[in-house]
Amino acid sequence: MNIPKSSFPRIIIIGGGFGGIALAQKLSKKEVQVVLIDKHNYHTFQPLLYQVSTGGLEPDSIAYPIRKVLKDYPNFYFRLANVEEVNANGKLIKTSIGNLSYDYLVIATGSETNFFGNKEIEQYAMAMKTIPQSLNLRSLILENFEQALLTDEMHERDALMNFVIVGGGPTGVELAGALAEIKKGVLPKDYPDLDIRRVQINLLQGGDCILPGMSKKASQKAEDFLEELGVHVWKNTRVTSYDGKIVATKTDLTFSTATMVWAAGVKGATIKGIDAKELLAGGKRICVNQYNQVEAYPGIFAIGDVACMQSDDMPRGHPMMAQPAMQQGKNLGENLVRLLENKPLKPFKYKDKGSMATVGRNKAVADTKNFKFQGVFAWFVWMFVHLFFLIGFRNRAVVFVNWVYNYIRFDREARLIIRPYNRDYSPFKD
Amino acid sequence: MNIPKSSFPRIIIIGGGFGGIALAQKLSKKEVQVVLIDKHNYHTFQPLLYQVSTGGLEPDSIAYPIRKVLKDYPNFYFRLANVEEVNANGKLIKTSIGNLSYDYLVIATGSETNFFGNKEIEQYAMAMKTIPQSLNLRSLILENFEQALLTDEMHERDALMNFVIVGGGPTGVELAGALAEIKKGVLPKDYPDLDIRRVQINLLQGGDCILPGMSKKASQKAEDFLEELGVHVWKNTRVTSYDGKIVATKTDLTFSTATMVWAAGVKGATIKGIDAKELLAGGKRICVNQYNQVEAYPGIFAIGDVACMQSDDMPRGHPMMAQPAMQQGKNLGENLVRLLENKPLKPFKYKDKGSMATVGRNKAVADTKNFKFQGVFAWFVWMFVHLFFLIGFRNRAVVFVNWVYNYIRFDREARLIIRPYNRDYSPFKD
Repeated sequence: MNIPKSSFPRIIIIGGGFGGIALAQKLSKKEVQVVLIDKHNYHTFQPLLYQVSTGGLEPDSIAYPIRKVLKDYPNFYFRLANVEEVNANGKLIKTSIGNLSYDYLVIATGSETNFFGNKEIEQYAMAMKTIPQSLNLRSLILENFEQALLTDEMHERDALMNFVIVGGGPTGVELAGALAEIKKGVLPKDYPDLDIRRVQINLLQGGDCILPGMSKKASQKAEDFLEELGVHVWKNTRVTSYDGKIVATKTDLTFSTATMVWAAGVKGATIKGIDAKELLAGGKRICVNQYNQVEAYPGIFAIGDVACMQSDDMPRGHPMMAQPAMQQGKNLGENLVRLLENKPLKPFKYKDKGSMATVGRNKAVADTKNFKFQGVFAWFVWMFVHLFFLIGFRNRAVVFVNWVYNYIRFDREARLIIRPYNRDYSPFKD
Repeated sequence: MNIPKSSFPRIIIIGGGFGGIALAQKLSKKEVQVVLIDKHNYHTFQPLLYQVSTGGLEPDSIAYPIRKVLKDYPNFYFRLANVEEVNANGKLIKTSIGNLSYDYLVIATGSETNFFGNKEIEQYAMAMKTIPQSLNLRSLILENFEQALLTDEMHERDALMNFVIVGGGPTGVELAGALAEIKKGVLPKDYPDLDIRRVQINLLQGGDCILPGMSKKASQKAEDFLEELGVHVWKNTRVTSYDGKIVATKTDLTFSTATMVWAAGVKGATIKGIDAKELLAGGKRICVNQYNQVEAYPGIFAIGDVACMQSDDMPRGHPMMAQPAMQQGKNLGENLVRLLENKPLKPFKYKDKGSMATVGRNKAVADTKNFKFQGVFAWFVWMFVHLFFLIGFRNRAVVFVNWVYNYIRFDREARLIIRPYNRDYSPFKD
C-alpha cells in the first residue's frame, strides 16, 4: 500500500462516511499517522440520495472528494480499496491493494441494505444506499415510463407505473413524497400520451405507524402529508416475496409492479475477522463499550452505524443516522489522543439533536427535544440543516440553486438516463 | 411505437442534438406531427464534455431532458430508441422498439469518433463524444493516480501519470489545457506523496499546426498558452498504433502511457439503409443539396455533422460544429413548412459566427469575421457564449456557480469516481 513508516502510531480508519470524516478531522493536527480507506474516493451525503433518484439533484453535488477533506493534514493518507479482512491477532488488515498493519483500527464502515436473508427480494428489489444505486433507480423510473408508452397491455402499463416502496422510515417516506411530486409536476407534461392519473405510489410499512423513530404527532402528520400528495400508505403490511412482478404480503394484499424499492432495513456493514459473537443479534452491528472500543480486540474501535453501543435507554444502540456517527467520531478522536497521552478516556454521551423528515414542498416534520413542529417551518428548517451539513461550499451552492429552481418551477431537471439500468429479466415475459 | 395516426404529415427526426432540437423548435406550432427519436433521453451539450472529464462540471448540468424541450408542443412525440435502419422505398424506419412510417425523415444523428479503421486504437483508446464516455475518462484519470501511489516501479508510475491526447482540434486543446490546470491546482494537494512534476500532458497533432480550423494567429497563441501551462505539443506527429502501453508514431517518437485519448477525428454517424454512394468518401457524411435534401431519396433530409453540403468554398461541407447544425435545423424547419405549402424552398446560407477555443483560465482564442482576439477577453466571451447556448436556466445557473467556484479556488470538485472504469486489460502485466 506504500504507506511510509512513521514514528507516530498508525490509526487506520475504514470508511469515509460521517463518522470516519469527523474522526479524521479531530485527529488532523495530532501526532499520529492516519490512513483512511474507502471503496469510493468520495464521501456520500446519504440523506439526499432520494433526491438523486428522483431527478431533483445531481449526484456530484452530494458527493465530496475525500482527498480534499484530508489535503491540509500532515501524515494523512487516503487509499481507495476494499477492506477484505481484519486480522486482530496480527494487528493488520487485508485489502484489495495489500495488507497494512495498524496500532489502532477504527471500523466506520456504516450500514448496508438488510434483505433479512430473502434472496429473491435481494435479486429483484432496488436499493438506495449508494450513489450508483440511486442513479440506477433514477434510470429505472424513467425507463419504466418510456416502456409504458410502448405497450397496449393495460396491466403491463399499470405495473410499469406502479411504484412500491417497502419501509416507512425516513428514506421510504421521503422517496414516496418525491415520487408523488414528480407525478404531479413533471410526468403529465413529459408524457402527455400516458394517463398519469394511473401512476400509483404505495408505501408499505410492517409496523402500525410510519417514521417509527419519531413522535406520534410527526408520524401522523407525515402520513397525512403523504395522503394529501396521493401516496397510498399501507401499515401493518409485511412483504413476504417479490419475483420482479408481484409483491406478496402477509395479508391477502398483493401489488403488480415492475419496481419495488427496498428501504425496509439496514444492517451493520461488518468485516470478516470480527467474530460473530461480537455482533448484536440480527443487526450485524459490532458491540462496543462506551468508549467505542470493541472489547474483545484491544486497539480496535467501531463508530457510527456499524457500532452498537447498548445502554439502558437504547438497548439496540443509537439510531443508525448521521448524528450519532459524527458525535462518536469526534469523541473517539479526542479519546485516541487521551489514550496516547495516557489520560483517562471520556465515555460517549449522545446529544440527541432531534430528527426530521421531509415529505414534499412545504411539508416536513421535525422533532427536537423541546419542540415538535410540522409543515412549512419544519420544511425550511430541514432544508437549512441539510445545506449546513453538506460538505463544501460548491456543493451547498449547487444544491441551493437546484432547490430554488425546483421550488419555483415545480420541476426536476435531472431526469436523465445517463447510464441505462438494464434489468437482467423481463417483468412481463416468462 | 404507439404513435397515433394524424391527419398532419409525419416528420421523423432522428437525433436530439443541436440540429434536431433547433428543427423541432421551428416546427413547434405547425400543422405537422413530429416524432423525435434519440438513444438518450437528453440533449448533450458536447462542447463542455471535456470539463466533465476533468472534474470541473457535473454531467447533469450539460444534459437537458429532450421531453422538456418538447413539452409544450402539440403533436410532438419523443421515443427513446436506437434507429437500426432506414427503408427509403417503404418510407419507414426500423428501430429497437418497432417500425414507423414517415412522410419526411430528417437524419440528425451527428457524428461519432473516427478511428480510421484502426481496431487496436479503437480498443485501447478513450473517446469523449458522449457523457458516459466522458465519465469513463474522468474515472480513469483519477484511478490512474490512485494506482500510481501503489507502485514502486518508476516506469509504471510514469506511464500512469503520462497523458497522451491525440488530435489538436478544439477538443484535444481544451482537454489538454484542463488537465494542465488540474496538474497545477488539484493534484499536488490531493497526492502529496506523488511527484506531480512528473505528470506529463502530451498533445499530438498530425498536421503542422493545432486548431487547423482557426486563424494562424489563434493557432499560434493557443500553442503558446499550452506551452505556458506545461503541455507538450507535438506537431507533424501522426499516431500509428497503441496497444494499451505504447503509443507509436510515424517518427521515432513513442510514448509509454496508460491513457491515450483519441480526439483525432470524427465521422458522420450514418444509418444503415443510406447507400454508400450517398456518402462523402472517408467521412461517412451524407451528401445533401443546398436544401439539406438527400437527393437520391425523396423525403429524406440530413442536417448537422452527419450532413455534407458541398460548395465551392467548402468542398468537404460545413465544419462539424454546433453552429452549422443549428442553422441548418432552423432553415430546414422553415423549408418543411414551405414544402407543405407548395412554396419554393430557401437554400441554406451558413452564417459563420466564428469559432473559439479555451485553453485555461484567462486563456482563450477567438476568431470572428472582423476580429481575432486572444487572452482574458476571449476567455470571458467564450464563457458567456457557452452559458448562452446551454439549454435551460438551471443548467446555466449550476454551470455558472461551478465556474465561479473553480475560478476563485483554482479547484475542480467533481473529481469523483462514481462508476469505476474497469479496463479489461492491464497496462503493465502481459
